[in-house]
Amino acid sequence: MSLIQPHDPILLISEEGKRYLVFAEPDSAWYTNRGRLPYDDLIGRPYGRIAETHLGQKFLVLRPTTSDLIQHLKRTTQIVYPKDAARLVMELDLMSGKRIIEAGTGSGGLTMAFARAVLPEGRVYSYELREEHQRVARRNLDRLGLLPYVDLKLRDIAEGFDETDVDAVFLDAREAARFVPMAEAALTESGLFAALQPTVNQVSEVVRALEEGNFVEIRVEEVLIRPWKPVPERMRPADRMIAHTGFLIFARKLDASFRTFWLDKRARRRAMEFGKLKNMPPVSGR
Amino acid sequence: MSLIQPHDPILLISEEGKRYLVFAEPDSAWYTNRGRLPYDDLIGRPYGRIAETHLGQKFLVLRPTTSDLIQHLKRTTQIVYPKDAARLVMELDLMSGKRIIEAGTGSGGLTMAFARAVLPEGRVYSYELREEHQRVARRNLDRLGLLPYVDLKLRDIAEGFDETDVDAVFLDAREAARFVPMAEAALTESGLFAALQPTVNQVSEVVRALEEGNFVEIRVEEVLIRPWKPVPERMRPADRMIAHTGFLIFARKLDASFRTFWLDKRARRRAMEFGKLKNMPPVSGR
Amino acid sequence: MSLIQPHDPILLISEEGKRYLVFAEPDSAWYTNRGRLPYDDLIGRPYGRIAETHLGQKFLVLRPTTSDLIQHLKRTTQIVYPKDAARLVMELDLMSGKRIIEAGTGSGGLTMAFARAVLPEGRVYSYELREEHQRVARRNLDRLGLLPYVDLKLRDIAEGFDETDVDAVFLDAREAARFVPMAEAALTESGLFAALQPTVNQVSEVVRALEEGNFVEIRVEEVLIRPWKPVPERMRPADRMIAHTGFLIFARKLDASFRTFWLDKRARRRAMEFGKLKNMPPVSGR
Amino acid sequence: MSLIQPHDPILLISEEGKRYLVFAEPDSAWYTNRGRLPYDDLIGRPYGRIAETHLGQKFLVLRPTTSDLIQHLKRTTQIVYPKDAARLVMELDLMSGKRIIEAGTGSGGLTMAFARAVLPEGRVYSYELREEHQRVARRNLDRLGLLPYVDLKLRDIAEGFDETDVDAVFLDAREAARFVPMAEAALTESGLFAALQPTVNQVSEVVRALEEGNFVEIRVEEVLIRPWKPVPERMRPADRMIAHTGFLIFARKLDASFRTFWLDKRARRRAMEFGKLKNMPPVSGR
Repeated sequence: MSLIQPHDPILLISEEGKRYLVFAEPDSAWYTNRGRLPYDDLIGRPYGRIAETHLGQKFLVLRPTTSDLIQHLKRTTQIVYPKDAARLVMELDLMSGKRIIEAGTGSGGLTMAFARAVLPEGRVYSYELREEHQRVARRNLDRLGLLPYVDLKLRDIAEGFDETDVDAVFLDAREAARFVPMAEAALTESGLFAALQPTVNQVSEVVRALEEGNFVEIRVEEVLIRPWKPVPERMRPADRMIAHTGFLIFARKLDASFRTFWLDKRARRRAMEFGKLKNMPPVSGR
Repeated sequence: MSLIQPHDPILLISEEGKRYLVFAEPDSAWYTNRGRLPYDDLIGRPYGRIAETHLGQKFLVLRPTTSDLIQHLKRTTQIVYPKDAARLVMELDLMSGKRIIEAGTGSGGLTMAFARAVLPEGRVYSYELREEHQRVARRNLDRLGLLPYVDLKLRDIAEGFDETDVDAVFLDAREAARFVPMAEAALTESGLFAALQPTVNQVSEVVRALEEGNFVEIRVEEVLIRPWKPVPERMRPADRMIAHTGFLIFARKLDASFRTFWLDKRARRRAMEFGKLKNMPPVSGR
Repeated sequence: MSLIQPHDPILLISEEGKRYLVFAEPDSAWYTNRGRLPYDDLIGRPYGRIAETHLGQKFLVLRPTTSDLIQHLKRTTQIVYPKDAARLVMELDLMSGKRIIEAGTGSGGLTMAFARAVLPEGRVYSYELREEHQRVARRNLDRLGLLPYVDLKLRDIAEGFDETDVDAVFLDAREAARFVPMAEAALTESGLFAALQPTVNQVSEVVRALEEGNFVEIRVEEVLIRPWKPVPERMRPADRMIAHTGFLIFARKLDASFRTFWLDKRARRRAMEFGKLKNMPPVSGR
Repeated sequence: MSLIQPHDPILLISEEGKRYLVFAEPDSAWYTNRGRLPYDDLIGRPYGRIAETHLGQKFLVLRPTTSDLIQHLKRTTQIVYPKDAARLVMELDLMSGKRIIEAGTGSGGLTMAFARAVLPEGRVYSYELREEHQRVARRNLDRLGLLPYVDLKLRDIAEGFDETDVDAVFLDAREAARFVPMAEAALTESGLFAALQPTVNQVSEVVRALEEGNFVEIRVEEVLIRPWKPVPERMRPADRMIAHTGFLIFARKLDASFRTFWLDKRARRRAMEFGKLKNMPPVSGR
């Protein structure tokens, strides 16, 4: 059973379901209108229990997951939602040892998810144009002990990336299409490209840029999570759901000989598209 | 640039978009009705290029991702789809160093995804009842070099798990509800529980079992991927999509004091449910 | 061009997009904190223009559609959403001349949609248990001139329906499964059954009751509307959507010989299920 | 109980769930590789029973609904799916007495749905450019007795429509954006516009054209039907679903004073957008 250490992140949940992300700073306390909770009451004790403020208000004390952190870390920018982050980590094939470029850093929520996926042997190179974002991101990553796995760079990516032969590149920038050639230059052969864009107009531009580069297996998709109300005797989906965050675009880089070899344009488009539904494993009852 | 090593997995894609997962066995070849492709033509050369059979048929030579492997590894059982595997890895908070129990192993597709997520310092304990499944899974994991991170156990989980204080438990079994108490016994406090069940009737049983145990933050959800046709001048979703694989159920274990402390039943149910939509970060335009 | 007549319904939309359903009562006015709008300013003039209150606040003056009315009529009960109402009208094959039973009436929103679909030659028989609901429904239908096409009945449907040989029956009641035999008794052969139920547990009961009766072509489905933000240069789905209102259940009644003739149980279940996806017309590009 | 009349449409469903749409022609028979079924065996008898071929193969004999007819009528063109047709009929506020323009006719499937919605007192004006499509549509409508309610016109709609003051216009044409001004000219004030377009690029053009005209309440949406497997003890969605047919675009025409009055551009855009989610009636448990 792991105990809460000084400076560890903690997720507190009130009886009403409100969620607070705090860090266990010694000699300090969390103040709320429901009372005071000294962090020293939490340090050295396990997660997974109930704590009370001096006014007797109860809170769940949980170890925040990457998903919790994405949603509750301090931020100055729009976040990449856990549903999209999860898909990106899987489809960009991140695991210990992989090297990935991210642009831009934003508040560092996705940087954190990438860093946790590639540590201890991999590395995230994260580019950002605006200093105030990078500052917030650096603070977030530092508090989580992730700075050893991340290079934070303050730079306009129009100048290109410093790294080459990286395993993956992820673009989350307003004009992502402009930066596809820089991504291609940085990627290793068979390397994985991804971008997140909120509008179809932008997606269209990115796909066009990928088609002009040496990319295959171009895919566009949306990730939808449909939450249910977990009441055994009245099972039903929740009334509302998040209908859109952004479109995910995926592609794989090929070496330059692709264009000369693969002459038939229709075959090339086919190659660029994702393996058809018919090639997917069948779903059968169990 | 990484070169293909003997025994490495390779994803071959034909001009028609058909996909084949092969392993680069020296002195051997891949035979297809489109000709013969000796693996020695591939070994020592990079991924991300085009290879030709002796009949001149071209194939893309790609490094298979975890997602590709899940879909194309040899199997004797129903798979857990990449869309669900991605969500599980994120929401179970897997990363290097974590210890997770999986039941059952099946053909090992998800075991592989879990192993890649927790290596090099973590471990997957994977239980399976039927020897023929375990044999296929062992072979799959061995070929991918993942056996050092996995304990394969042939065992009826009704007897309980050997491990305690694990970070996460995942149940993919017909009668998952029966095994929730075993999962609770194995989990550390604040540890993460997940299950995948194809029918609502089963989900209802699992939720009931979780409510009877010391679990909070019970969530049920579906992951839907909506693929688009990536044609810049005619952007539209694909005609068909996979509408259902299974329901994901998540929960977190609390220590036993939870039930005594958190006396108000309505508040407890609220605590058991997932943070409401209103607590989620807003989505704003960019 | 049709002009607004005394007592006609009008949909007013403010500059902020707020919507108000009013009726054009002569010698009367609509009062809002944005000023006073005499109905006599509207009567005798066309829909589809802008009106101003005495404080100069502008409102769109529109003819409310059935869909608007469903959403904005006075009500004491949960409504059936336009998305579901539309599907019901189509799948219950309503058109002028058809006779349909509805239970319960509720506030009459769906009754109105059914009446408009079957008028002038058809009829809606609408059953309700609680007088206060029926009173609201009667007032709503009266204001819209639909009472000539509707029989409102105050009755517990456990006693059965008065009508026989009706073309369609729709059940929107808490324990719909109990009333399936009454629906069967009222329906003509090849007649259409539908129910709306919010939880899967209820759906399961209704399907079971249908299977015990002489029903085929049993279908369960959800209707989802995904709204988009209509901005030409930034096309994207809306951030949020309604994820659930209820499940629709459809079936067709057969004559009693069905059970004796169709002996093979598997074939019968197949017959009861909806025409498979493979039988649906293909979607091709245009 | 209504009996099958000569020439009536019949839906036959085999034990395997295959569906056939036939017409009961006297002195004729339906031939299948499962045997011969004389229509005179069906005429004069009720729908909703089982018939046998001379080889003893059984078929359900059902009265086809509008939805069945849309899917199974002879066609030379892409159909508008029942899910979209239902939404169109509701949102275009069709009922007996309404006058609607449709372009193009195609094979007449949607024309049929519109005619059934507006009969006996309304009328459908359906324009088509290609004679072979119109011929198929005329035959389909004739067999269903719907020609008295439809004007079929062979004409390029670039020349405009003959009708004015119509209640609704529906465009299903490749370059629908070009024809928005013709639609506006034909519509009455507060009249309802709709279009169906398969790609976002086309939708973007139509929305732009609507914004340039006197339209408000511009909405774009997708209708998704999620089918379930109706097995009471194993409730789950179907494995596959139709993910896309087309985008629906709706708008209402205003008189020309709209543009001069409604000066603030942001307010106008707001007016053009659909009533926000917050204005929708709440969904509550029952």
